[in-house]
Amino acid sequence: MKKVVVTGCPRAKLAAVDELASFGVATVHEAAGRTGYLGPAIRPVYLGARTGGTAVTVVCWPGDNLMIHAAVEQCQTGDILVVTTTSANMDGSFGELLATSLQQRGVRGLVTTGGVRDVAELNAMSFPVFCAGVSAQGTVKATPGAVNIPVSIGGTRICPGDAIVADDDGVTVVARTEVAATLAAARARCDKENATRAALSNGQLGLDIYGLREILAAQGVEYVDFGSYQEPP
Amino acid sequence: MKKVVVTGCPRAKLAAVDELASFGVATVHEAAGRTGYLGPAIRPVYLGARTGGTAVTVVCWPGDNLMIHAAVEQCQTGDILVVTTTSANMDGSFGELLATSLQQRGVRGLVTTGGVRDVAELNAMSFPVFCAGVSAQGTVKATPGAVNIPVSIGGTRICPGDAIVADDDGVTVVARTEVAATLAAARARCDKENATRAALSNGQLGLDIYGLREILAAQGVEYVDFGSYQEPP
Amino acid sequence: MKKVVVTGCPRAKLAAVDELASFGVATVHEAAGRTGYLGPAIRPVYLGARTGGTAVTVVCWPGDNLMIHAAVEQCQTGDILVVTTTSANMDGSFGELLATSLQQRGVRGLVTTGGVRDVAELNAMSFPVFCAGVSAQGTVKATPGAVNIPVSIGGTRICPGDAIVADDDGVTVVARTEVAATLAAARARCDKENATRAALSNGQLGLDIYGLREILAAQGVEYVDFGSYQEPP
Amino acid sequence: MKKVVVTGCPRAKLAAVDELASFGVATVHEAAGRTGYLGPAIRPVYLGARTGGTAVTVVCWPGDNLMIHAAVEQCQTGDILVVTTTSANMDGSFGELLATSLQQRGVRGLVTTGGVRDVAELNAMSFPVFCAGVSAQGTVKATPGAVNIPVSIGGTRICPGDAIVADDDGVTVVARTEVAATLAAARARCDKENATRAALSNGQLGLDIYGLREILAAQGVEYVDFGSYQEPP
Amino acid sequence: MKKVVVTGCPRAKLAAVDELASFGVATVHEAAGRTGYLGPAIRPVYLGARTGGTAVTVVCWPGDNLMIHAAVEQCQTGDILVVTTTSANMDGSFGELLATSLQQRGVRGLVTTGGVRDVAELNAMSFPVFCAGVSAQGTVKATPGAVNIPVSIGGTRICPGDAIVADDDGVTVVARTEVAATLAAARARCDKENATRAALSNGQLGLDIYGLREILAAQGVEYVDFGSYQEPP
Amino acid sequence: MKKVVVTGCPRAKLAAVDELASFGVATVHEAAGRTGYLGPAIRPVYLGARTGGTAVTVVCWPGDNLMIHAAVEQCQTGDILVVTTTSANMDGSFGELLATSLQQRGVRGLVTTGGVRDVAELNAMSFPVFCAGVSAQGTVKATPGAVNIPVSIGGTRICPGDAIVADDDGVTVVARTEVAATLAAARARCDKENATRAALSNGQLGLDIYGLREILAAQGVEYVDFGSYQEPP
Repeated sequence: MKKVVVTGCPRAKLAAVDELASFGVATVHEAAGRTGYLGPAIRPVYLGARTGGTAVTVVCWPGDNLMIHAAVEQCQTGDILVVTTTSANMDGSFGELLATSLQQRGVRGLVTTGGVRDVAELNAMSFPVFCAGVSAQGTVKATPGAVNIPVSIGGTRICPGDAIVADDDGVTVVARTEVAATLAAARARCDKENATRAALSNGQLGLDIYGLREILAAQGVEYVDFGSYQEPP
Repeated sequence: MKKVVVTGCPRAKLAAVDELASFGVATVHEAAGRTGYLGPAIRPVYLGARTGGTAVTVVCWPGDNLMIHAAVEQCQTGDILVVTTTSANMDGSFGELLATSLQQRGVRGLVTTGGVRDVAELNAMSFPVFCAGVSAQGTVKATPGAVNIPVSIGGTRICPGDAIVADDDGVTVVARTEVAATLAAARARCDKENATRAALSNGQLGLDIYGLREILAAQGVEYVDFGSYQEPP
Repeated sequence: MKKVVVTGCPRAKLAAVDELASFGVATVHEAAGRTGYLGPAIRPVYLGARTGGTAVTVVCWPGDNLMIHAAVEQCQTGDILVVTTTSANMDGSFGELLATSLQQRGVRGLVTTGGVRDVAELNAMSFPVFCAGVSAQGTVKATPGAVNIPVSIGGTRICPGDAIVADDDGVTVVARTEVAATLAAARARCDKENATRAALSNGQLGLDIYGLREILAAQGVEYVDFGSYQEPP
Repeated sequence: MKKVVVTGCPRAKLAAVDELASFGVATVHEAAGRTGYLGPAIRPVYLGARTGGTAVTVVCWPGDNLMIHAAVEQCQTGDILVVTTTSANMDGSFGELLATSLQQRGVRGLVTTGGVRDVAELNAMSFPVFCAGVSAQGTVKATPGAVNIPVSIGGTRICPGDAIVADDDGVTVVARTEVAATLAAARARCDKENATRAALSNGQLGLDIYGLREILAAQGVEYVDFGSYQEPP
Repeated sequence: MKKVVVTGCPRAKLAAVDELASFGVATVHEAAGRTGYLGPAIRPVYLGARTGGTAVTVVCWPGDNLMIHAAVEQCQTGDILVVTTTSANMDGSFGELLATSLQQRGVRGLVTTGGVRDVAELNAMSFPVFCAGVSAQGTVKATPGAVNIPVSIGGTRICPGDAIVADDDGVTVVARTEVAATLAAARARCDKENATRAALSNGQLGLDIYGLREILAAQGVEYVDFGSYQEPP
Repeated sequence: MKKVVVTGCPRAKLAAVDELASFGVATVHEAAGRTGYLGPAIRPVYLGARTGGTAVTVVCWPGDNLMIHAAVEQCQTGDILVVTTTSANMDGSFGELLATSLQQRGVRGLVTTGGVRDVAELNAMSFPVFCAGVSAQGTVKATPGAVNIPVSIGGTRICPGDAIVADDDGVTVVARTEVAATLAAARARCDKENATRAALSNGQLGLDIYGLREILAAQGVEYVDFGSYQEPP
């Protein structure tokens, strides 16, 4: 890995990112062709937050948060810090003081494959954090890494400036150049889901709405009455 | 696995299930002779819910929710959907739209060994969900499975129509034919626990209430003063 | 393991423990030279609690809570029960009745490497519990263990009478003889953090406050503009 | 759970079980309609073994092997011991002495959701063991369980007398009453696989043998040359 | 994800890949600037294999191996198949028949984030497999994915045609355009390690060879005799 | 944690340690009153090794092996290096070069809660390694820790100079001052096990040898014939 801080990265437009975030993670993930989700291991540290912003990426050494400090300087209003480590590590590399610094710069949240601490304080500050766990174990500032290089979390690539959407379903990313297309798809999906919801509320079934009876039949699924169903004893 | 939807399954009586649910998971599990618990991996997606109902069981292929849609049609008032997959899979095979459909039919909750999404919306709907995790990753509707066949979760067998009780302690099941006996045992246990609670509140010790001093002595447990206790250096 | 209940253990002074607890887990762990943290696997069963007290330690057999009952008798006002098992086990060896008994004796909480049950009731009682999981599975009272011997959790040793501090960041322990020194260090660290927080709130950077620019340069970290950064294709 | 030792259980016929075992786990699992596999968590303690037999089932308390001893007496030539616990537990409840006792009775192996010890000795004895892990931690003989009741492992039900097949792929079970049908299906599958293997060895493709080109086309999979493929930047 | 099979991908030169592979995973990972390692979760299914080749990448749906069949056709002599799924899944999507087909085409091994089966047969064929686990559970061929698009495993990106090196230490990847530079660095590192090995064999210490005594001193590490060392009681 | 290298630590006598090792891990763990086992997460990197020696302990920062180098100098003939980290970390902090250095000094093996690399070379060198995993990821030499302070692994405390025994069952430790007593107990246990093995080989049952029929009866375990056993439907 190159030891580098990349500066002056272009960002997705905040107005578009804000509208994306309003749709929530599941809808944006679907609208993006089922790409971008960072996986079930990244969870909100407290439920109820929803945020969106543009990625500033960080690669740290395990047990070390030197590069998070370097990244803070690269952050601007609307950014979300996205932290990963060169190997799995749960140490609390992020806490209330770093959140204070980020919030002062207009940063909207943290996504990390590692741990955080000062959870009660982060909650009180309403600073949204999405992480793999909580640990009070402190870190050092000794070993270099990188800021604003492409990183991969949960099989998904995140480049600096990409749009991040995060809520109780986790975190999803939309490539900077795909934001407009994804936004259009999200709007369309939302309209369609509104119609489906109305139909389901009226008692229609997904089996009919989605044409699944044909699939069940084609796949050889049989309907058998309880009285005549015989499972292997 | 037979590709089958079993229809017309008999259910445990809802009045009895409702009373069972009022005792909570831990008491019902005890009353059933310490059987039926689905294990610590199935957790409420948000704390504070308590529900009970009759099982409609589903077996899905990983990454596929076709059979959940087939199961919805088999659900009636008082049911709880119990979903498992042929191999471990955390995809979000269940979300707000399916919950809308189930709630419209009087279904009281979901139990799944997989993942769910739209967590914030499920919470807003007060639809109780007990699951192994949260994932925004969507599923397809391509591969068959089964509805209302016996399934096993956490070493416990669940048949269609069995009573399900779920709260912050997780999920437990009572076989349809055992509901009446378990209910009687739960009532008795509850009475006994009330008496024990009162005694403990008054300062009595479990050591005396449960006759444990004899066991400690029989097992060779010694009481040693801190000053004279010598551990291996 | 010796089958023993050690009685009459000296405790850290409660006034000092109370002040320690007011600083929270992360600060106390730092003040103790980054020792004492029990690791990220021990979590509060519900968020928002903060407690402190003096350790009464218990070693149980898996699936057995006999020694928890023996330990209750050794507890006094200000204690926190610290439970571990001879091998990993998530059974619900602790619930509402034991919490009632402990609360009656002035005990301030439970720390366990195992599981608890009656979560809703524990929450209603405001009895703080820090554990590895939740399970309704009951335990027996058949096999001996020990009370008030030194135990190790997450690589950290806990002796009877040690100070325990627990909050949303997990649990940390301070050796009884180190409480005064750790308290002094916590006060100093808190003062320093207040100053740092004020500086960060005013827009100063950790890079400057902690002198990290020199470290980045010494480690060969380069600053490169986005336009000229070339990653391997 | 009833505290019971069920005696005199009928078994699948050994000749049929032996032929089943000769096909191996993957083929038998397929021949049984993709049922019966105990999942990827149960692994051979040393690679290279292949065994088959009839199940004698055991339910133990965690940290306790009392019921394994009770089960030994129920074992006869051709049996395989299948052990599970009421909650997850890795203690070494089985070792060389129990293997000696079982081998003396003609038992062909052990399947357990728990741990084993004396691994080197078990290997030297050529006693096949399929388990979730290895632990030297000893167990007690204090708490009751059951022998020869139906158990569930990895979502699969095992009844006493069922056919067990185990090899480097893990363990699969065939219900006693399904052994003949599964054997016929395994023979047929094996013939088919021999033909397929020959075709593949000659350079034919699964795409053609299984008719997958149509599926790919129907699902909208496009073939694009590397030069013209544009991924999101 | 685009449903696509990318054809005609350029590959790293096999002669260079072969020499890279001769250095082994750890050396290549170091030579590549400590990049490319796929992480400790991908393990050889049997110890002792060492292989290298050029990547053909596959993205499958969980429980589905349709795209593996599509990928076989894209494979040529010297390739290694690299399989991932859209969400974690351990099903045995690869076995002896697919290995037969690949071996016929000169493919040198499989890397997968999922499971394999027919382990004994794969071993007998000497077909190297690096995977996350073993499972006999079969897969379907119903849902599309992609072949030869960039994928990420363990935070590392793999593009079609990249060099793959795999041995008992796991799997590492070198970008196609970096193979020559990495090869040069590997040769240099190997020479240096030979010298270091000779020095260590003669009794020299890493402390002196790497100049670590200065670091220890600068970091405040003290040398204390056992007799005078006092740990917190 | 104090940043310290403790020198001149006394060791358990090698002759006694050698005899202990000859009994193997399970027997020594039993002889020590079922204490000392480091748990099932520490496994031999290749099966078949058996070693014993005296502990030199190391605490490293995650991703850093500086203190392993410091520890090498403290090692002498008969020692075993015991490494842990301040938080869970699987990086390959130990490989062939360190093993060369240790082997040159007469060190008999490595025990680590972290990862190792160069597995094929370690195997070729016949240097026994017991670890939590394998990873090619390299480490830095930047952050201090400690050598020869007491550490805890799997709930068990290890002090410098303690006896370590390791084989395919994992690793167990005997406190330096307990070696003689444990050795005597191991001899006695071995004699007893020889007698038991002979009895079991002759067809006697553990039920009779250990007097378990009385326990089963006292615990209410009933013997029921298959024909009359009725499980809940």
